[in-house]
Amino acid sequence: MKIKGKHYHTIWLKKDDPQTVQVIDQRKIPFQFEVFNLRTVDDTYFAIKEMVVRGAPLIGITAAFGMYLALLNTKQKNLEEHLQKTADYLKSSRPTAVNLAFAIDEMLEFILKEKENPQLIQETLEKVHSFKEKEIHYSEKIGEYGLQIIEEIYAKKQDTVNILTHCNAGWLACIDWGTATAPIYKAHRKGIPVHVWVDETRPRNQGARLTAYELGEEGVQHTVIADNTGGHLMQHGKVDLVLVGSDRTTVTGDVANKIGTYLKALAARDNGIPFYAALPSSTFDWKMENGLAEIPVEERGTEEVAEIEGWTGTKIRRVRLIPENSPVANYGFDVTPARLVTGLITERGVCKANKKSILKLFPEKIQL
Amino acid sequence: MKIKGKHYHTIWLKKDDPQTVQVIDQRKIPFQFEVFNLRTVDDTYFAIKEMVVRGAPLIGITAAFGMYLALLNTKQKNLEEHLQKTADYLKSSRPTAVNLAFAIDEMLEFILKEKENPQLIQETLEKVHSFKEKEIHYSEKIGEYGLQIIEEIYAKKQDTVNILTHCNAGWLACIDWGTATAPIYKAHRKGIPVHVWVDETRPRNQGARLTAYELGEEGVQHTVIADNTGGHLMQHGKVDLVLVGSDRTTVTGDVANKIGTYLKALAARDNGIPFYAALPSSTFDWKMENGLAEIPVEERGTEEVAEIEGWTGTKIRRVRLIPENSPVANYGFDVTPARLVTGLITERGVCKANKKSILKLFPEKIQL
Repeated sequence: MKIKGKHYHTIWLKKDDPQTVQVIDQRKIPFQFEVFNLRTVDDTYFAIKEMVVRGAPLIGITAAFGMYLALLNTKQKNLEEHLQKTADYLKSSRPTAVNLAFAIDEMLEFILKEKENPQLIQETLEKVHSFKEKEIHYSEKIGEYGLQIIEEIYAKKQDTVNILTHCNAGWLACIDWGTATAPIYKAHRKGIPVHVWVDETRPRNQGARLTAYELGEEGVQHTVIADNTGGHLMQHGKVDLVLVGSDRTTVTGDVANKIGTYLKALAARDNGIPFYAALPSSTFDWKMENGLAEIPVEERGTEEVAEIEGWTGTKIRRVRLIPENSPVANYGFDVTPARLVTGLITERGVCKANKKSILKLFPEKIQL
Repeated sequence: MKIKGKHYHTIWLKKDDPQTVQVIDQRKIPFQFEVFNLRTVDDTYFAIKEMVVRGAPLIGITAAFGMYLALLNTKQKNLEEHLQKTADYLKSSRPTAVNLAFAIDEMLEFILKEKENPQLIQETLEKVHSFKEKEIHYSEKIGEYGLQIIEEIYAKKQDTVNILTHCNAGWLACIDWGTATAPIYKAHRKGIPVHVWVDETRPRNQGARLTAYELGEEGVQHTVIADNTGGHLMQHGKVDLVLVGSDRTTVTGDVANKIGTYLKALAARDNGIPFYAALPSSTFDWKMENGLAEIPVEERGTEEVAEIEGWTGTKIRRVRLIPENSPVANYGFDVTPARLVTGLITERGVCKANKKSILKLFPEKIQL
């Protein structure tokens, strides 16, 4: 998608330097646009852990590039041991997103299988790039299937379609297009009038900072709101559709997403508004049946709640929000039970949030 | 209640200066403790509008003091016209809280009735003070009735009672004790172990700034959380009771309170957790039957969402949170329908959130 009119992906190999992976430094958006270099596995771990990159699909691709960087920096004789350690290390950077482990395991398996291949490095890089292309393709397909939902609402309403989204499941969370935003961009490009209510998404404000930024750069009409506001808007008919991403979705349709998503799903249900999660199949956890009991929910640093980052006019500055001695808790995600989810938008189409409907789209995942 | 061990009210007449009303400047808590002087009606309007004082009961008392200040600054000959204008002006400072209009009308009626009384100024001041004493008494009674609810939970659980609250319905919103916090302070003083989950309450962060501060000063165990967190906590059995205040409650039991309250009520219902609103009877709107349709919801300045105030270590500083050109909406309140409210805690006892139960406690309000 576009930044200042120029097309970007969120991650790419540096031009003329195959030892360096580059990403947009998302800690500085929307105040500053900077590129961050990854040259080592430690750089990659840091970038995921500290949220230089974030969003389940982008985390997966970043980790895949991390495995490629590990390979570049490994001697042949202890390749297997080194890569296994790297895989465990990178997996520990963020616990909730399933894409991370998925991408790492697939890269590890590939490299070990091909380890005698004289073209190993080149082949590994191609594998990462095919991963990346697949994510872009999946996002576009999600966009096309989700577009149909927006078109149906527009056909009935014949007026601007108001969509509420939480956190950033935008192209900045992916490679291009996004997940929850992909249908919005597709609708916008098709000339359907859309307006997006952007939850600011405390504590890290990915909505206010990233979603508002990318919608603005693409010229999509939007309004930033406090996370507390969505229920009131829904009560007063100002939301036609809730569209979010997911960090992990169980095979039974329970949706883990940024903390606060569950509250919006409850409000959508209470007001008869459709609630959809958009996700590539890499976000499904095919083994998990009970999201509430089984999905690990990351607890993050308390400074994310106790402090906040903003723009002074000349620089990014942190300020303290709470009394000196008050304790803080910071849970990163919550789980929206399948019963509150109208449907899931995937690269293969839209399905209901239940095992039968999900596995009908992905029959190869049926556990025999 | 206490600040640094010293007992305070939120508003008082300055010692040895009956022309000056003093309030705690709540815009600076918890970072700085300052007293703000009200000498004119304009000072009073400013203090309410700009939230130097806030909270429905405190706004009412501040407006009552404002009518007293108006009287001090009025010539006898156009008293009636001037006070009527002042009343309208002060009422326009904040539209949602019903206590404001209630207090102003009662003061206006009193002054006009007594206008020939040679002791008018002294009598008016006594009227304001009796108003203030009544609010304190009501808070204490709310505390005693609400305590019973906490005691019942403790009797069953025999472990720390976890209470979630939203915004600040504390003593800083009242004169002393608070509304939602009064039962908590009563329980704490009685030795019942309580722990409070404090919603930070964006956009103005009254939870993170005021509730955390006053609980801390009173030594009550608490944890500050982002507004998005309550649902997750409730899903995992970490909340035993939701206790909030109200800015206006209809005679049918619909509760207007700080934006986001409705989302917590939905989560409480979904998880079988009791949800109570604590309010003095001055917060009831005896004429209103449908809160969602009839309660005016204040839209406040967009800078409250676009920017945030925090402590740099040496001073309070505002920083910008969103992209330069992103629009913002800022609704101050939402309405929780009576069907989601377990009960109302008033100075006369606890009732169900319906007209019959409310009017049973306040039979003199039955409209004939």
